[in-house]
Amino acid sequence: MDHGQTAATQGSRIDAYVDRYAARATGMVASEIRALFAVASRPEVVSLAGGMPYVTALPLDVVGELVADLVARRGPVALQYGSGQGDPHLREQICEVMRLEGIDAGSDDVVVTVGSQQALDLITRIFIDPGDVVLAEGPSYVGALGTFAAYQASVVHIAMDDQGLVPADLAETIARLERAGRRLKFLYTIPSFQNPAGVTLNLARRREVLEICQRAGLLVVEDNPYGLLGFDGEPMRALRADDPEGVVYLGSFSKTLAPGFRVGWALAPHAVRDKLVLAMESAVLSHSSFSQLAVGQYLATQPWREQIKTFRELYRERRDAMLTSLEALMPPGCTWTRPAGGFFVWMTLPEGLDSKAILPRAVAERVAFVPGTGFYADAQGAGNMRLSYCYPQPDRIREGVRRLSGVIEQEIRLRDTFGTGSAPDHIGVDTPGPDLA
Amino acid sequence: MDHGQTAATQGSRIDAYVDRYAARATGMVASEIRALFAVASRPEVVSLAGGMPYVTALPLDVVGELVADLVARRGPVALQYGSGQGDPHLREQICEVMRLEGIDAGSDDVVVTVGSQQALDLITRIFIDPGDVVLAEGPSYVGALGTFAAYQASVVHIAMDDQGLVPADLAETIARLERAGRRLKFLYTIPSFQNPAGVTLNLARRREVLEICQRAGLLVVEDNPYGLLGFDGEPMRALRADDPEGVVYLGSFSKTLAPGFRVGWALAPHAVRDKLVLAMESAVLSHSSFSQLAVGQYLATQPWREQIKTFRELYRERRDAMLTSLEALMPPGCTWTRPAGGFFVWMTLPEGLDSKAILPRAVAERVAFVPGTGFYADAQGAGNMRLSYCYPQPDRIREGVRRLSGVIEQEIRLRDTFGTGSAPDHIGVDTPGPDLA
Repeated sequence: MDHGQTAATQGSRIDAYVDRYAARATGMVASEIRALFAVASRPEVVSLAGGMPYVTALPLDVVGELVADLVARRGPVALQYGSGQGDPHLREQICEVMRLEGIDAGSDDVVVTVGSQQALDLITRIFIDPGDVVLAEGPSYVGALGTFAAYQASVVHIAMDDQGLVPADLAETIARLERAGRRLKFLYTIPSFQNPAGVTLNLARRREVLEICQRAGLLVVEDNPYGLLGFDGEPMRALRADDPEGVVYLGSFSKTLAPGFRVGWALAPHAVRDKLVLAMESAVLSHSSFSQLAVGQYLATQPWREQIKTFRELYRERRDAMLTSLEALMPPGCTWTRPAGGFFVWMTLPEGLDSKAILPRAVAERVAFVPGTGFYADAQGAGNMRLSYCYPQPDRIREGVRRLSGVIEQEIRLRDTFGTGSAPDHIGVDTPGPDLA
Repeated sequence: MDHGQTAATQGSRIDAYVDRYAARATGMVASEIRALFAVASRPEVVSLAGGMPYVTALPLDVVGELVADLVARRGPVALQYGSGQGDPHLREQICEVMRLEGIDAGSDDVVVTVGSQQALDLITRIFIDPGDVVLAEGPSYVGALGTFAAYQASVVHIAMDDQGLVPADLAETIARLERAGRRLKFLYTIPSFQNPAGVTLNLARRREVLEICQRAGLLVVEDNPYGLLGFDGEPMRALRADDPEGVVYLGSFSKTLAPGFRVGWALAPHAVRDKLVLAMESAVLSHSSFSQLAVGQYLATQPWREQIKTFRELYRERRDAMLTSLEALMPPGCTWTRPAGGFFVWMTLPEGLDSKAILPRAVAERVAFVPGTGFYADAQGAGNMRLSYCYPQPDRIREGVRRLSGVIEQEIRLRDTFGTGSAPDHIGVDTPGPDLA
């Protein structure tokens, strides 16, 4: 027993297959910081780290009745395999949801996925050969960067400011990369209430971004989980609404209903949709019929627009609690974004401070955040942190910001004395798992 | 609008991205035969094609109460994100299920996946670079072959007989490929009640296969969705039971409970498990908490061993109906396997008949099957068909076999007159979607 003996002799934690993995697997190494986030999930710690929606705001009794009714009325369908593309009726309902953002689409171009994360995975799978370029805002969603890395894409960041990604930088970057002979595959963007920056691409820039990408023949992947969670006025018009053939739109019920069903979707140009369905079948055969029909039943029988309003009010109060206490408590030199929706504030630290080095001290002081480095594919982000306000109650948010401001003040004193703050002691993708608040 | 104009001018079905896809996507083309299977799903057609379990045999009232109770008691957990590895309590329960096949494993080495199909996808993702070799029985599960193709693996088939894969051919094939400098990554096998062949690897061969793979340092991927659905005596001892470091075991609740939750799993050596969790997070973040907790609640509160026994008796009766009517009705020259469990019979046609060419005639006569070609990565299988007995009632099975025997008799007459039966008129992966019975 060759590998058996190796394991017996050297301990079962030795990897007998270390020489057998695919090239794409070599980068798959767990972040050392994970353990720290596990500590941060203890109740005494105020976590401003995670992105968990506040599902307790749902009417649980109603959801319970609804799933029981689903099994009683449609059990043999809900418990059976479904089609790779997803339940036809749910796909109609998804088109109705997207209409709120100006999208006029047919259900035949929708593919239901295991969260919009899987839509990202499938899109990357069908477009990316190793070394191909994906353009993405800097900073960008850590889960997308992880997926791009898993397919050995090369991510090039586009600059952002308070109005979202900067069109001039997008145009220049495309031109530069094309001159260099690189294969550009798509622009990945979260135009509304961006994760992690909390900023929103304004309307004029939306037009510019579409024009630039159309000129370059470049597909846009519009990831829009927070689009209906804006605090002011009507939902913004989606990029997809103005370019059906140039945009793949990714949506999700994780933030407008609940992540526990894992129901997301992609709306894609027809030929791309064909390939997405085949990739879906190859990846998981089909999504859970039960999950899909439960979401469909919820949309058909419950006042889902009112529920989204409830979520909006709840998150607005928490955003206000965070912005007010940041204003009141953070030392000079700290700056931050002012999100008009979604879950996140992006903070920039005073010169010379390193957010990853600060994290262990913050956790010791019972507050957690996500260091900025995880949101870049390159070495940026050490001077930033993502603060989320979606999960803790307003009082806890204020207390968390108070604790964090104390830690940052201490870091500033350290820097002023020694010329630097705490030194970082590890590398890796530094984010909590999806189940940490 | 470059691509917009293209679409407007040439019709929106033109693929503006045809030059942008990844190399792995070029093989992603829908089978022409799909339309035929859609017809085959009409009620007047007896489908011996699909692999849908008979979920109507479940106590639906109990399942309904169970999911309602789940939301009432654990709603905020069931509706929230879960961990990438899967619910810890469900993983314990999965270890209990595997104990029925002699497996002694810790829940820390289990990863819950979106059906065992996703486990296959993730295993392939972490091991396969383009051109790497996967060994697999010939014929083998079409969904596995699709996944291997999606990662550009090269599948080499190992011969099978009535006792399962032939160890001597395995050893010779490994030696031959190693001499040729090929990179072998794993053996994919369905040892019990194989899909599509319906045969089972006997105990002596199980030991031989493990020894051969251990000597070659080759990982075994043991796919075992039907292991508990044997019609005679106790479940067979799993390969994994005798080689914890050499085998990745894939399991599923799709056939022992219901596919609608999409809950499967992988049990893997520890280092491989680490990579599977990271691949899982990159692919979908986490599986549905709701699905996982529903399955866990079912296992904790219901007599699941009795339910499996109910399924076994049901499928045994259907297997008997199929074998008896094949014996009574099929023309001379047809041979078939005699499964001792699972869902499938593998039929071999008389010389000169082509199963793919026969399918349209069979559907016209209101009976469907899956042509054998879909179960091979090479050109084999034209003389075979897979007949499944899992979904139709025994009477319908008998009627289906009667119709099919009539079609085959006619094909034999055609062959005897013209020297060949119906000619095949298309190519592609020829299987129904997962939702077709």
